[in-house]
Amino acid sequence: MAFAEIAYDVDDRIVTITLNRPEKRNAWSAAVEAEVREAFTRAAADDGVRVIILTGAGSTFCVGADVNGIAGRTPERPRFAGVTPPPGGAPPVDDLARRYSYILNIGKPVIAAINGAVAGVGLAVTLFCDLRFMAGGARLACAFPRRGLIAEHGSAWMLPRLIGPMNAADLLLSGRTVTAEEAAAMGLVRVLPAEGFGAAVRAYAADIAANCSPRSLRIIKRQLALAPLQSLSAAIELAEAEQAATIGTEDRREGAAAFLEKRRPDFTGR
Amino acid sequence: MAFAEIAYDVDDRIVTITLNRPEKRNAWSAAVEAEVREAFTRAAADDGVRVIILTGAGSTFCVGADVNGIAGRTPERPRFAGVTPPPGGAPPVDDLARRYSYILNIGKPVIAAINGAVAGVGLAVTLFCDLRFMAGGARLACAFPRRGLIAEHGSAWMLPRLIGPMNAADLLLSGRTVTAEEAAAMGLVRVLPAEGFGAAVRAYAADIAANCSPRSLRIIKRQLALAPLQSLSAAIELAEAEQAATIGTEDRREGAAAFLEKRRPDFTGR
Amino acid sequence: MAFAEIAYDVDDRIVTITLNRPEKRNAWSAAVEAEVREAFTRAAADDGVRVIILTGAGSTFCVGADVNGIAGRTPERPRFAGVTPPPGGAPPVDDLARRYSYILNIGKPVIAAINGAVAGVGLAVTLFCDLRFMAGGARLACAFPRRGLIAEHGSAWMLPRLIGPMNAADLLLSGRTVTAEEAAAMGLVRVLPAEGFGAAVRAYAADIAANCSPRSLRIIKRQLALAPLQSLSAAIELAEAEQAATIGTEDRREGAAAFLEKRRPDFTGR
Repeated sequence: MAFAEIAYDVDDRIVTITLNRPEKRNAWSAAVEAEVREAFTRAAADDGVRVIILTGAGSTFCVGADVNGIAGRTPERPRFAGVTPPPGGAPPVDDLARRYSYILNIGKPVIAAINGAVAGVGLAVTLFCDLRFMAGGARLACAFPRRGLIAEHGSAWMLPRLIGPMNAADLLLSGRTVTAEEAAAMGLVRVLPAEGFGAAVRAYAADIAANCSPRSLRIIKRQLALAPLQSLSAAIELAEAEQAATIGTEDRREGAAAFLEKRRPDFTGR
Repeated sequence: MAFAEIAYDVDDRIVTITLNRPEKRNAWSAAVEAEVREAFTRAAADDGVRVIILTGAGSTFCVGADVNGIAGRTPERPRFAGVTPPPGGAPPVDDLARRYSYILNIGKPVIAAINGAVAGVGLAVTLFCDLRFMAGGARLACAFPRRGLIAEHGSAWMLPRLIGPMNAADLLLSGRTVTAEEAAAMGLVRVLPAEGFGAAVRAYAADIAANCSPRSLRIIKRQLALAPLQSLSAAIELAEAEQAATIGTEDRREGAAAFLEKRRPDFTGR
Repeated sequence: MAFAEIAYDVDDRIVTITLNRPEKRNAWSAAVEAEVREAFTRAAADDGVRVIILTGAGSTFCVGADVNGIAGRTPERPRFAGVTPPPGGAPPVDDLARRYSYILNIGKPVIAAINGAVAGVGLAVTLFCDLRFMAGGARLACAFPRRGLIAEHGSAWMLPRLIGPMNAADLLLSGRTVTAEEAAAMGLVRVLPAEGFGAAVRAYAADIAANCSPRSLRIIKRQLALAPLQSLSAAIELAEAEQAATIGTEDRREGAAAFLEKRRPDFTGR
């Protein structure tokens, strides 16, 4: 599949998925939704990829749905078979296989690099990413009630967990526009200076790609994705089982050796 | 029903419910509890009301229970039939029909305007409001363990969700008094200057009343109230269903038209 | 049982449990784990103890597992019968009786006084404490993915609840080292100046010991421990039942009397 609405770049074990219709301020459409899902699926399956960045071309990240092809009006049925479950893991539970919640099930860190304005469905998609960096001074809004809409795509479930019920109510009920700085005070994003924004996000990703075991990342992502769906006991049991299974793996041995030898590790993901 | 313990004012689509016994520092009693519930029920049922503010008369919000009529000692059985479920919605689940948790089920934004000192049951009630604005310099305390009491009225469930388990433990286990500023750092309230406090809260409410669809607010409030009680899948399915039902509504058409025409919307709530 | 790996000190109703192998930077071992659990069990059972502090000897809190006796590799089966359930309470649920989660079930405030560097299992243990104070300038890391490990001991469940999913993902997926100040901005710890750190933590504990009812603390701790495991309705019902049971207790009478007489209370815990 060649991409028309997005760009897909691999560089030094980091994939960057770029919403690439700057002339339409990267408006979200059914085609964009499909290509983004295909891109995430491809990056998740590629053993050479360690971190995934989602960003926008030009000065906007994504300010919502394209009026000529509203993703929100397409049926929920996913177009793709979904993200491959991590090796040895259980099949993904339903909560992690929905329209955008499949992103939670990707076994690699997913970073939203919000380079400019973000609103509506554009914001909703970033809620399923692990981290949200945002360019200083850029603006963010849910906007839904100001357009006669509802809290779309699970945002009413994700936002209270991410920033607490009060901040979620503020953003969802007022629909008001806030700066990146105010969103950061709510805990929704981390602000990085607009100048050099892309490079700073990339440096964060590169640190993980260079120093963290892909095997560890895969398992920790799954632990984090399952945490809100399981009891504390189940989480502890999963951790104990994964900890036992870690002994004797290549990455565990390399991690211990690199630490003792005070050198950079060379992980294989096994 | 005429109110004796509270004041009920409607102005420009905003209802203000005022705890109105300043000579008793707005102490909470069974009669206050009953009148507040009746007032919320009335405001919820009035199609002309878009936002509800709960505040206190004088320089105190409410510093706890009246020793001559402790609300906490009355039986849990609610006095009123409860808040009307939103049109087309399911009947309210039990979690949203309890002594103060019924506030979560009101289909309009509920703002606590904490104009002065707040403690005990007075604080507990505000935890069920969507937003808490607090006057700069005012003081807040749970106080329970310092009085030989326990964490009343669901505060041990709500506080960890609102401000995290550590901040909740700090407030509930120490019972210490903090300033509005410290409470804001925990994410419990938003501070506004004491000078002009009421007008500033009102401006926030007026923005919602003027620019947000009452239909949207009703549905988003319900999405937020149900979020902690449902799975992510259920939340996504609810959002998809509500999104589909939104197409073709008056408020959706008006929201889109006002946006394109760069004018203020005139929502009907339908 | 005499302690070899830790110190156990009682002073003015405050127990301090000190990880006491400064020559090994207080590395965690199976023996340390067993002694810490025994110490918590002893402090929980001692009616003369009102607050428990966990800290480290020397300039480190605990930077992880001892390579010569990794606690993480011992079986989950607890060595001790567990913490006594609070009088009148239900038997502890399974979630509160696991390797470190038993700390949540202790009926007294538990404060982690993180006097210096903390990482790995050392950090995981503090997540089950009610409060985490940390010395300014000290450093904190999960470190797991940099060593080829996974998110150990329930940290993938606790961290998102404590500091939100984004901050948890940042710490667990990057494994990077942050300062106490950055950890405080995430809401993970409260920073106190390194100079006078122990005394400042002790002053916080002493305020609780002097002014809070042990009976109240026991019940509020249980309410907080059960909150994530129960519905809002169940939490409200528990609060109503405990509130009713509080009337007529010695501590309730003393709390009310001390308040009215503007004097310090003298609680018995009954």
